[in-house]
Amino acid sequence: MFSHLKDWIIGPALPTSSAGHKQLNKIRALAAFSPDALSSIAYANQEIYLGLIIAGSAGLAYAWTIGLAIIGLLVVVALSYYQTIHGYPTGGGSYIVARSNLGTLPGLVAAAALLVDYILNAAVSLTAGVAAVASAFPGLWPYRVMLSLFLLAVITVINLRGLRETGTVMAVPVYLFLVTYLPMLAYGAVRLWIEGPTPLTAAAVPAAVSPLTFFLILHAFATGCTALTGIEAISNGVPAFKPPQARNAGQTLIVMALLMGALFVGSIGLTQFLGVVAGPNETILSALARRLLGDGFFYFVIQFSTLLILAVAANTSFADFPRVAAIVAGDGFLPRQLRGLGDRLVFTNGILVLSIAAGVLIVFFDGDTHALIPLFAIGAFLAFTLSQAGMVLHWFREKGRGWIVKAAFNGAGALATGTTVFVVAISKFLEGAWITVLVIPLIVLAFHRVRRHYDQVKSQLSMHGLPPSLRPVSPARVVIPISGVHRGMVNAVRFAQSISSNVTAVYVEMEPGSGSRVNEEWEEWWPDVPLVVVPSPYRSLIGPLLEYLEKTDTENNDGQLAVVVLPEFVTTRWWQNLLHNQTAFLLKAALLYGRRKSGLERVVIDVPYHLRMG
Amino acid sequence: MFSHLKDWIIGPALPTSSAGHKQLNKIRALAAFSPDALSSIAYANQEIYLGLIIAGSAGLAYAWTIGLAIIGLLVVVALSYYQTIHGYPTGGGSYIVARSNLGTLPGLVAAAALLVDYILNAAVSLTAGVAAVASAFPGLWPYRVMLSLFLLAVITVINLRGLRETGTVMAVPVYLFLVTYLPMLAYGAVRLWIEGPTPLTAAAVPAAVSPLTFFLILHAFATGCTALTGIEAISNGVPAFKPPQARNAGQTLIVMALLMGALFVGSIGLTQFLGVVAGPNETILSALARRLLGDGFFYFVIQFSTLLILAVAANTSFADFPRVAAIVAGDGFLPRQLRGLGDRLVFTNGILVLSIAAGVLIVFFDGDTHALIPLFAIGAFLAFTLSQAGMVLHWFREKGRGWIVKAAFNGAGALATGTTVFVVAISKFLEGAWITVLVIPLIVLAFHRVRRHYDQVKSQLSMHGLPPSLRPVSPARVVIPISGVHRGMVNAVRFAQSISSNVTAVYVEMEPGSGSRVNEEWEEWWPDVPLVVVPSPYRSLIGPLLEYLEKTDTENNDGQLAVVVLPEFVTTRWWQNLLHNQTAFLLKAALLYGRRKSGLERVVIDVPYHLRMG
Repeated sequence: MFSHLKDWIIGPALPTSSAGHKQLNKIRALAAFSPDALSSIAYANQEIYLGLIIAGSAGLAYAWTIGLAIIGLLVVVALSYYQTIHGYPTGGGSYIVARSNLGTLPGLVAAAALLVDYILNAAVSLTAGVAAVASAFPGLWPYRVMLSLFLLAVITVINLRGLRETGTVMAVPVYLFLVTYLPMLAYGAVRLWIEGPTPLTAAAVPAAVSPLTFFLILHAFATGCTALTGIEAISNGVPAFKPPQARNAGQTLIVMALLMGALFVGSIGLTQFLGVVAGPNETILSALARRLLGDGFFYFVIQFSTLLILAVAANTSFADFPRVAAIVAGDGFLPRQLRGLGDRLVFTNGILVLSIAAGVLIVFFDGDTHALIPLFAIGAFLAFTLSQAGMVLHWFREKGRGWIVKAAFNGAGALATGTTVFVVAISKFLEGAWITVLVIPLIVLAFHRVRRHYDQVKSQLSMHGLPPSLRPVSPARVVIPISGVHRGMVNAVRFAQSISSNVTAVYVEMEPGSGSRVNEEWEEWWPDVPLVVVPSPYRSLIGPLLEYLEKTDTENNDGQLAVVVLPEFVTTRWWQNLLHNQTAFLLKAALLYGRRKSGLERVVIDVPYHLRMG
Repeated sequence: MFSHLKDWIIGPALPTSSAGHKQLNKIRALAAFSPDALSSIAYANQEIYLGLIIAGSAGLAYAWTIGLAIIGLLVVVALSYYQTIHGYPTGGGSYIVARSNLGTLPGLVAAAALLVDYILNAAVSLTAGVAAVASAFPGLWPYRVMLSLFLLAVITVINLRGLRETGTVMAVPVYLFLVTYLPMLAYGAVRLWIEGPTPLTAAAVPAAVSPLTFFLILHAFATGCTALTGIEAISNGVPAFKPPQARNAGQTLIVMALLMGALFVGSIGLTQFLGVVAGPNETILSALARRLLGDGFFYFVIQFSTLLILAVAANTSFADFPRVAAIVAGDGFLPRQLRGLGDRLVFTNGILVLSIAAGVLIVFFDGDTHALIPLFAIGAFLAFTLSQAGMVLHWFREKGRGWIVKAAFNGAGALATGTTVFVVAISKFLEGAWITVLVIPLIVLAFHRVRRHYDQVKSQLSMHGLPPSLRPVSPARVVIPISGVHRGMVNAVRFAQSISSNVTAVYVEMEPGSGSRVNEEWEEWWPDVPLVVVPSPYRSLIGPLLEYLEKTDTENNDGQLAVVVLPEFVTTRWWQNLLHNQTAFLLKAALLYGRRKSGLERVVIDVPYHLRMG
């Protein structure tokens, strides 16, 4: 039944042979790789606005300056990644670039930062998308957590089914976003040019609750930097482009950066110069759209297309997180279950881990984008920095044509993004950045522990040093724990006798006096198998049995442990298990995981007896 | 570590030999068996008050009449149980009396009613006790659920440790309750005699929200009947008395019934004739105590002693529920895990089931006694009725001296309590009684299913019809599923070779092409063991392996199934299991529980390989 349900939701298994790659033209590639980067303006604008408004209208006056500073950062980072694309045409994710140029530890830091970043991107994009729709329909505002989780569930299921047509379906929200936002911004610019700027009306702006300090501006800048998240996507995906891959990818990156710049500068500039202020339970972009388009049809289209592109942006995490996790797991730093393709040829376990982690964040931070943002930028910018720094070394080692200029560009990128990490970590530390600052080293530590475990396993499993011919063991001593004389024992005794002539049955006497009765019956049926009755003053079964086994092993001293033949009932339905003491199960667990006194291994033989019943 | 924690909370295991019984004199016996019955006045009074006040002061005027009707019922029921004590001096619980006289089905209905009743008694007593204390300290009112659960946890732990000194420690709350309440009621009676009755001030009583109907009065009577719950306790516990047991128990019952009557009549009479009305967030008994004693020290003593006796009353469920569950389980109608004594010589599983069920009720009904009461009385009165009806038949069969009078007394009891069940079920149906009305038949159904399962198991396990001498099976065909060529396989292959000369290894090829590599290595180490490579186009392991096993079994057609030798890694720490696919575990489960095509049993041999690492 469970398997039918799974088939219905996720779809039937796909054969390995149907795996394959499709190459994307630039139009489709832009749609596939840009949603995360383009949609960032939704929350970045909001954060700058929320960061400045606490200093009142004096604070809001700095929005434009901060916007320009971020555009400057965008130019530097975009040029840096343009270089990465040409340096690593086979796909230069931060983990790969950092690991191959800077070494394992920086690589792992980059990987940890990326994984955290992807989780936060999913959580932030979904909550921001829901906030966009809830701005249009204020009745939805109290249900933001539920709506975000619902979207998360839908995206999870879609990804578990496997997204075959990335380029086509995904293209709709991206181009819808562009063809609604860009004309709106252009229309706003024309109006601004004709009507001239509108000063902020003092009445509309809440009174300042904080003086305007440098730190406050830095703070707004730090959170505004989230506008740049997602810009690295193209450099990770170069192999998905049609040849000439590096050139096409580079051109697409430039187009994407220009679009990001236009959207960001346009929206932040119009907000400032038209004096737009958001009401309660509304995002600043919603307020801007309402100001330009009124409360009509076009406004709703804008908000809906914002939700759509943010949902697609969350979806990119579902492509990236499992892929990076699989690469890291392939290097032995994460559990190997993250490495394998599931039934539908997707990294099922990675998708589930991401979905659960994002869901926990959404619930824990109450579906509030603003609360999540301080955790967000650090991971992204840390990965940027390590990747750019790696590229500097890459050019330095290669020393190809014009390497000094290339290294300088990437160096500038590393410096700019590294400074940003620092600014974000300090200015947002108490608001939540400490979580990311704490979690990334913990993840790196876990990477090391996992790798050490696999290394130890590998060395323990090595056949190296074994004698070339391994002789069979000598015939075993067999012990059968019995719960009484009944049909469930018959096959167990027969099997034990077929593999050994040294078979003993053991009965643990939990009720005083029951031993002699069982012994009598036993001798009637199996006179040739000796029965040992072990007393159990504390009414437990496993302790006395283990003691008995250890005692006989010591007494025999034949260099091996007694083989335990376990007669085990198997019931027809799951609930029937509740009606039986799970003795066989607990005993197996105790035999397998119990503390062992010698270096020997105890073989356990399960002889099932299926009960047939309704 | 877990076992240390358990030892610290619950105490170390006790040997079976230290089990024993102590016999109680009448003073201690009264303390041991009466808390449930005596404390019932706390919630019964409250329910009558809440039932009548919705009809305003006109409704409250009926409290005294209802009180007298319940006293009448008390007399009938007490006399009935007096007879039961003499008819079943070895302990006449409702289950035993109903089952032995009326047959299995009525016995099981009584057992189900009792179990439900005990759970509700625990939940109701705890919430009522907390309400008593929260009446004195209104700041605690919002934390009633938490406080009730805390008390429940404390009582659970005490019972898991095992209550050795029932009579002594329990006696304190009972006698404290008597020496505080009885003088208070006497003082009130004197004041009433001197000052004369106080009419209800119209201002103090909330306006009637419902007309005063016969149904409303019936309703208040029905919930007031909860005053009688617990009266059966002595008849269950006759063997705990010092000899002459039946006589001592009978006398104790009469004293208890007199005390119940005095407390109930006294409190309800004073409440009515002194015109006491409770404020919000206060019980009516608290209002009465405040009226008589003011807001001083004595008032707090009264409330605290109410909490204490109610806690002790909840505790009696912890003695009774596990005992009845063990008796029913002993007859095969409940899982046998409820039958055995745990480490501390108490029915650990029964205690845990009761505690969880009561906790769920407290949470689900928000710690509100008033919401729980409609569920409560049915179970108790149904058990009364069945037990009394059983006694009628008992006297009829025995036909001893004066049997007609005795049968008449019990008949009157059965009639009175049977009518009460009916009244409660109808008047409280929609408020929650339907839950009990539904649950009791479901429990009886579950009893039957459980018993049928055990009966089927028993017949399947019977040695009856087996040939007297059971020959060993012929040598086995052995299959070893391998994950590669490594040290973890060595012991498995050696063991397989020691028990059979027909050993095959199987490798499921999940990554295309890996098979030939593994095969090459394999032949190097074990040239004499053939390796079969099974393709797995859908990347799953278990499906192809099971198919292979079924195919070879069919091909060999030797009347048995291949024995599977499973090499299994065992890690040192639990978290390391997360780093390995739980293949061996899942495979064992599939082999044990999978659908079987033949009537044969497949033996599974576990050969562990312990990884040694930090």
